[in-house]
Amino acid sequence: MQSGLIDSLKGIVGAEHVLTSQEDLLCYSYDATPGFSHMPEAVVMPGTADEVAKVLAAANEAKIPVYPRGSGTNLSAGTVPLKGGIVLLMTRMNKIVEIDTANLIAVAEPGVVVGDLNKAVEEFGLIYPPDPGTVATATLGGTVSENAGGLRGLKYGVSKHYVMGLEVVLADGRILNTGGKTVKDVAGYDLTKLFTGSEGTLGVITKITVKLMPAPEARRSMLATFAKLDDAGQAIAAIIAAKIIPATLEIMDNATVRTVEDYAKVGLPTDVEAVLLIEVDGIAEVVEKDSAKVVEVLKANNAAEIRVAQDAAERDKIWAARRAALPALAKLRPTTFVEDATVPRSKVPDMIRAVNEIAARHAVTIGTFGHAGDGNLHPTIVCDIRDDAEMDRVYKAMDEIFAVSLQLGGTLSGEHGIGVGKLRYMESQFGPAGMAAMRAIKKALDPNCILNPGKLVGECL
Amino acid sequence: MQSGLIDSLKGIVGAEHVLTSQEDLLCYSYDATPGFSHMPEAVVMPGTADEVAKVLAAANEAKIPVYPRGSGTNLSAGTVPLKGGIVLLMTRMNKIVEIDTANLIAVAEPGVVVGDLNKAVEEFGLIYPPDPGTVATATLGGTVSENAGGLRGLKYGVSKHYVMGLEVVLADGRILNTGGKTVKDVAGYDLTKLFTGSEGTLGVITKITVKLMPAPEARRSMLATFAKLDDAGQAIAAIIAAKIIPATLEIMDNATVRTVEDYAKVGLPTDVEAVLLIEVDGIAEVVEKDSAKVVEVLKANNAAEIRVAQDAAERDKIWAARRAALPALAKLRPTTFVEDATVPRSKVPDMIRAVNEIAARHAVTIGTFGHAGDGNLHPTIVCDIRDDAEMDRVYKAMDEIFAVSLQLGGTLSGEHGIGVGKLRYMESQFGPAGMAAMRAIKKALDPNCILNPGKLVGECL
Repeated sequence: MQSGLIDSLKGIVGAEHVLTSQEDLLCYSYDATPGFSHMPEAVVMPGTADEVAKVLAAANEAKIPVYPRGSGTNLSAGTVPLKGGIVLLMTRMNKIVEIDTANLIAVAEPGVVVGDLNKAVEEFGLIYPPDPGTVATATLGGTVSENAGGLRGLKYGVSKHYVMGLEVVLADGRILNTGGKTVKDVAGYDLTKLFTGSEGTLGVITKITVKLMPAPEARRSMLATFAKLDDAGQAIAAIIAAKIIPATLEIMDNATVRTVEDYAKVGLPTDVEAVLLIEVDGIAEVVEKDSAKVVEVLKANNAAEIRVAQDAAERDKIWAARRAALPALAKLRPTTFVEDATVPRSKVPDMIRAVNEIAARHAVTIGTFGHAGDGNLHPTIVCDIRDDAEMDRVYKAMDEIFAVSLQLGGTLSGEHGIGVGKLRYMESQFGPAGMAAMRAIKKALDPNCILNPGKLVGECL
Repeated sequence: MQSGLIDSLKGIVGAEHVLTSQEDLLCYSYDATPGFSHMPEAVVMPGTADEVAKVLAAANEAKIPVYPRGSGTNLSAGTVPLKGGIVLLMTRMNKIVEIDTANLIAVAEPGVVVGDLNKAVEEFGLIYPPDPGTVATATLGGTVSENAGGLRGLKYGVSKHYVMGLEVVLADGRILNTGGKTVKDVAGYDLTKLFTGSEGTLGVITKITVKLMPAPEARRSMLATFAKLDDAGQAIAAIIAAKIIPATLEIMDNATVRTVEDYAKVGLPTDVEAVLLIEVDGIAEVVEKDSAKVVEVLKANNAAEIRVAQDAAERDKIWAARRAALPALAKLRPTTFVEDATVPRSKVPDMIRAVNEIAARHAVTIGTFGHAGDGNLHPTIVCDIRDDAEMDRVYKAMDEIFAVSLQLGGTLSGEHGIGVGKLRYMESQFGPAGMAAMRAIKKALDPNCILNPGKLVGECL
């Protein structure tokens, strides 16, 4: 990068908001995905959409790559500056612009931390439902760009189901606005949804209008153990068939349960093939009725033990077990890959069985847990990235896991995005026509391919 | 069009599925939008996606316009073949491919009538929620392409909220698949949402995967009259503020109420400024609780009279009043324009007042009714399209209605689409950057601009 460009960038955002020391650059050379890192040439921290527009116009003119980034909790290497250039750090733009209770809407800048948004709307009896595991650090801009989900996805969906409108700066610095506060809006192409989940490859999001929901009046949590995986699978299907949509319906397989028990001593039997964790929410009468029905379904499907939380302490205990899954697995080995292969919910037992078979065959350690109700599993591979022979086996296992997910009618990503981590599988999901269409859209909106180049749709041709 | 191309088309779909007589062509020269018609050169009725692919490849090669069409219930002239060419009539592709109750999914061809899909899923206790007024004739393909909504939009959204995956034939004949049966799917650009509502300008939809919902166990309808429009507006806001999301929350203004009473004699007082019609649904306990709360809110906001349906007959009577709104208005004069300007719900009274003022100033007759809960009003202009002087005033009034809608933070379309009917307002909503972005996407996916050319984003440059 020319030093003239650095000076221009300092002129736009202020010298104190351009970082170029090696120590600073190192901090922005990676995200939460193992195995990917690259030094940027500058970290630029804009304070307004107008500054973003000027930075992009300058970068586009100079054909320098720009990597938009929030807190860097990304699990698919989506924010790693693989070609150097500029990391565009959006965390200074962290104002909640408006909470509009009459229309159940919030407007916020991309740097707002998701947990802070939820705290701000809580006093109005409202929630912003997407709740990724990283809710305390991840930014709204990052979660919207990656379409982050979370534990409540079954009932409440992922980020895209809440994004109503966006202010976006295009690659050449033009600013456009999509969507707005209207619940129904069908004018024009759905640019709001196109930019949402586009992982920073089509534009830089500078303002976000999201839908809020009334906070549920009541909730009840349950935990059930199953000697047989298939019974757990049948129970999941039977809950949905009973017309109950729990807020949360999670599964942990035997490997995960054993590891969790070892790590957190929550009193789980380590010989069960699966544990289901369930929460229903809504108005008190619904919660009463639905939870009774869930217990009935669990019993009918051979649950060995069923615990129903009677108070907040018991609820916390149930979810502590689920929250321990990732840290417990991560503690086993130096490196953790959390994948998010997702299948139709009726295929969850098939998928878990396939993952176990793949793990055994390649001699790698995989614990599977995740959002069974929506088919979004987290096969979590623990390994040592310094061991080349093991990593060969890990990458082979990963290839097979994603291939099985697609064979079962699933998708490469339920909530973590593609980035570069899963780029090599994209053509098997979308085919040549799908990839060509996506690349044509990328090229149409970012002709010089400066925005997060090489990610999601691959290299520009 | 060369006769050689007609022969090729006959070779692809069978001679009996290519119509070229003037009588036949006339039937496909218009849709449900007044003021637009143009004769096509051929009507082609494909039976498979493969046939669609071959027709498009041939048309693309010859640079002949192609207008995909279902039942032609469109209200924005979206299916009118304004440049001649081929009307691609999708009604032969009318199979329901699959109803997957385990995953709450249906897969259907575009020619399936929406009402028929609902009948088919009803026996499993499921519903496909989008319910446009034309549900008995409109096709799934047409409603998905136009993002049709309906009376249940407040709680259940519009078509795009239910489309999970698509098979689409691109302009050059390549077939691509987007999305699928997984509830969470964030891989790649959201092509599913991009094609949904793109009004046939980006590709031809040949298969549709939709989400189904459990049918509500119970429902209750209410009607309330208000001497003052502002009280009705306050009541709408207060219902939402009470954390109740009714399935349906409709308003009729005084002009509409008077016309309905004249036409259908349903016993409405003709001196009220507004009538609200409300239905809550869900499990029985919720319906009981919510409807009691709604009645309380209506009383607190000065409702003059409140009727709560005690049985199916009383429910039918309430909704007969609402269903009479459009036919009653349409009977007043030869020509009816049903618009769908949509504003944030808190702006509904402002919008109704503005429409009344515009009607008075231009001396045109406008009845306003619609989906108050989601801000999607239907200002309905009745006039005589043969009267040039009146039409001048009508078009001026229309321009002002859409301008006000945008000023109030609204959108040009809540559920009818843009087509050519509202094309001239698009730049005021999206600005030059937004229009340029949409046109670049159109050009990227349909370089020869053969798909429904001139619609939604205007002429290709």
